[in-house]
Amino acid sequence: MPLTTGPGVLRHEDPHLGERLARSARATGGVATSPEQFEKWFAERGAAQVHDVTRIPFSRLRNWSFAEDTGNLVHDSGRFFSVAGLRVEVDEGPVRQWSQPIILQREIGLLGIAVREIDGVLHLLMQAKAEPGNPHGVQLSPTVQATKSNYTGVHRGRTVPYVEHFARAEPRRVVADVLQSEHGAWFYRKRNRNMVVEVGPEVEAGDDFCWLTLGQVQQQLRIDHRVNMDARTVLSCLPGFDTDGPALHTRTEIVSWITANQAVHDVDTTVVGLRDLPGWRQTDMSISHERGVFFDVIAVDVVANSREVSGWTQPLIEPHGVGVVAMLVKRFDGVPHVLLRARIEPGYLDAIELAPTVQGTPENHAHLPGPLREQLRDIERHRHTGRVLFDAELSEEGGRFHHSRSRYTIIEVGDDHPDEEPPGFRWMTLPQITWLLQHRHYLNVQARSLIACLRACLD
Amino acid sequence: MPLTTGPGVLRHEDPHLGERLARSARATGGVATSPEQFEKWFAERGAAQVHDVTRIPFSRLRNWSFAEDTGNLVHDSGRFFSVAGLRVEVDEGPVRQWSQPIILQREIGLLGIAVREIDGVLHLLMQAKAEPGNPHGVQLSPTVQATKSNYTGVHRGRTVPYVEHFARAEPRRVVADVLQSEHGAWFYRKRNRNMVVEVGPEVEAGDDFCWLTLGQVQQQLRIDHRVNMDARTVLSCLPGFDTDGPALHTRTEIVSWITANQAVHDVDTTVVGLRDLPGWRQTDMSISHERGVFFDVIAVDVVANSREVSGWTQPLIEPHGVGVVAMLVKRFDGVPHVLLRARIEPGYLDAIELAPTVQGTPENHAHLPGPLREQLRDIERHRHTGRVLFDAELSEEGGRFHHSRSRYTIIEVGDDHPDEEPPGFRWMTLPQITWLLQHRHYLNVQARSLIACLRACLD
Repeated sequence: MPLTTGPGVLRHEDPHLGERLARSARATGGVATSPEQFEKWFAERGAAQVHDVTRIPFSRLRNWSFAEDTGNLVHDSGRFFSVAGLRVEVDEGPVRQWSQPIILQREIGLLGIAVREIDGVLHLLMQAKAEPGNPHGVQLSPTVQATKSNYTGVHRGRTVPYVEHFARAEPRRVVADVLQSEHGAWFYRKRNRNMVVEVGPEVEAGDDFCWLTLGQVQQQLRIDHRVNMDARTVLSCLPGFDTDGPALHTRTEIVSWITANQAVHDVDTTVVGLRDLPGWRQTDMSISHERGVFFDVIAVDVVANSREVSGWTQPLIEPHGVGVVAMLVKRFDGVPHVLLRARIEPGYLDAIELAPTVQGTPENHAHLPGPLREQLRDIERHRHTGRVLFDAELSEEGGRFHHSRSRYTIIEVGDDHPDEEPPGFRWMTLPQITWLLQHRHYLNVQARSLIACLRACLD
Repeated sequence: MPLTTGPGVLRHEDPHLGERLARSARATGGVATSPEQFEKWFAERGAAQVHDVTRIPFSRLRNWSFAEDTGNLVHDSGRFFSVAGLRVEVDEGPVRQWSQPIILQREIGLLGIAVREIDGVLHLLMQAKAEPGNPHGVQLSPTVQATKSNYTGVHRGRTVPYVEHFARAEPRRVVADVLQSEHGAWFYRKRNRNMVVEVGPEVEAGDDFCWLTLGQVQQQLRIDHRVNMDARTVLSCLPGFDTDGPALHTRTEIVSWITANQAVHDVDTTVVGLRDLPGWRQTDMSISHERGVFFDVIAVDVVANSREVSGWTQPLIEPHGVGVVAMLVKRFDGVPHVLLRARIEPGYLDAIELAPTVQGTPENHAHLPGPLREQLRDIERHRHTGRVLFDAELSEEGGRFHHSRSRYTIIEVGDDHPDEEPPGFRWMTLPQITWLLQHRHYLNVQARSLIACLRACLD
């Protein structure tokens, strides 16, 4: 890339970005799109993108089959993803050794939101997009969800709309661009590129797209199953909220504590074949845990009414029960702090990532000892005694997970809540978390979702 | 950890740390230790720690053997490290597919330097330490080089001196604490914890230890094979040099460019057995590449004159030739910028890390096409036309590598040098690099060494 030297060649970070985002967050009534226009558009897109999803036996999958050598569930092309087995040994928790099915998807996908100034206010180009695993049809999604092949142009296929604004983004137009992990319990080392790029007035919203202010998107976050996981993680990586302020721990102490947790934990994982995975039973309808907990691997037939594709079949992961994803917030000297936890999941690239205060599914732990049941009870108690800042049922990526539902909750606790940090927990401020989110793999996808929601509560 | 609330519970990063380190860097004549005292001490320690190292056949290794199933070279205890095979496929470079021996060492070790104020000036507690692979006996080393077992106390063995100051560091005393990678060409996903901790006046220097100012240590960096790799990497992680200033690219742009490089490159590695590795020949004396390039795996017998251990045998990696590790620096509007490269190495946790402008060993590439030979010629040319800021022959970790020598060079080029950034290269300022070094795995170990040296040139 050619550069020109001489006076003025050096630059600083945009000092106005924080204020521009804050102004967009305050514009909850919309600027380019009124609330009525938005609801009408969203209902129309829901009617236009209907997925008829039927559960089928694995033997009726088209272009997917169990590999002869490993028993892995793979696509004939070798592309998309596959389901293999993972053998895990960890040094913490009620169960230290287990095997499980795991999704392998090595390529780094792109999740991108285009932003544009309209009438002096930043707007986000949100997409209404249906996925076969979504509990209720379409959800608000990023401008672009693209595979690597889509955005590097290796395979010439149908072009993903707007992908060129991300794949060939002018560096100065990039607002955020960072790798983040996905669910470490279900994916093996999967990462996505989370991008926000500012575009010019020449970019307009197509049928499935709508310009919304940050405030409008934040309001939608509060509606059950309305904003998809991909949009939530990109929103969490927005900069401009990271003014260094006072905190219980300095940034150096926070990174030191994370480093210590990475260094002391042993997480040993081996990818193995899906066939004969200890503790799991395979029929033609599902691969399930022998206790009926955690999740099933299933197959679905999808009939879509859209113009592009008529239908397809694919495997999905169907988690059991409704997850609980909860964060406690407490003010110290008036400054809100979030209680994050260093959490081991077998699919992380590193040993740990920072997770919400509590993350788990009650049904999965009913038969196990350990502190999770008590933590879940604590959260139920806090729902009544604390100030509930956020509470909605949200779902995970519907292209991989079938009706994956979790109740996402943020509760502000009072001064009577103990200040203590149990081992593996730390209170951090929102500016500190925003600072961490400029870099890869500090916060897990559940924590990122809640941080996107928390900004909507505190701004 | 109990906390106390109430006024004054919140804190800020130490605003004086940068100035305290700068003052220590200016004290090149020493405060606690005069240059003469230092030289006398260092010579004495060199005489006191003599390693008599003899090459032996693998069959004469004690407690090490080739595993029956894999052919891997392993220790009977399963501890320390092992040598296995790695199958690699990459999407860039003259060779896209190969197999090679690789060191497996999963545990995260600790490299720590204790700092203490003496007469108002920060001093670093440096150790004189011999390693069997060092070209010339003892080198200046961190206060502590400890395995995980040493610092978590899992195995009760001989205690490593000063380790308790790092293992149980009071959070506010931590100056730096970050995971960093080691050589991705020789190690598979090896990381070390790089720590700097401030200690009080009660900590004194034992026989093998010496309090030196940062300026004194920086002077020693200029002497061939004087400061070891472990000390160099810890020095590179020192904070206080990261005042945000103007630059060719903003921090957001730098991270975006790194993210793009991580996302587009495919690096596919599989750990395999050491036996019958394609392209490598094994005799009782060595495992060598069939062209006689890259490195050999060898075995040595070590006789030490120290009190603690009488002697041992171990495998070592013996690289061929003398490496070239060089960085170009150019001023833009008076602000120095370093030309870093996004480099693929098979042992990184991620696809790429940032490396010096040029990094390679001429002998290894004589038979290969590709741009490295031209880059090495360019560096030789710059040695004559540019301003050589730093030039010394340094060695890598002598506990794993036998006489691993590289010429580390920093050259400031003039305005006539093109501003252009070839694909995969970026100009960055020292504050930007210091900012990246607060987080894990951005810069590779060679780049970190040169950054420690560059600070000595520019301060």
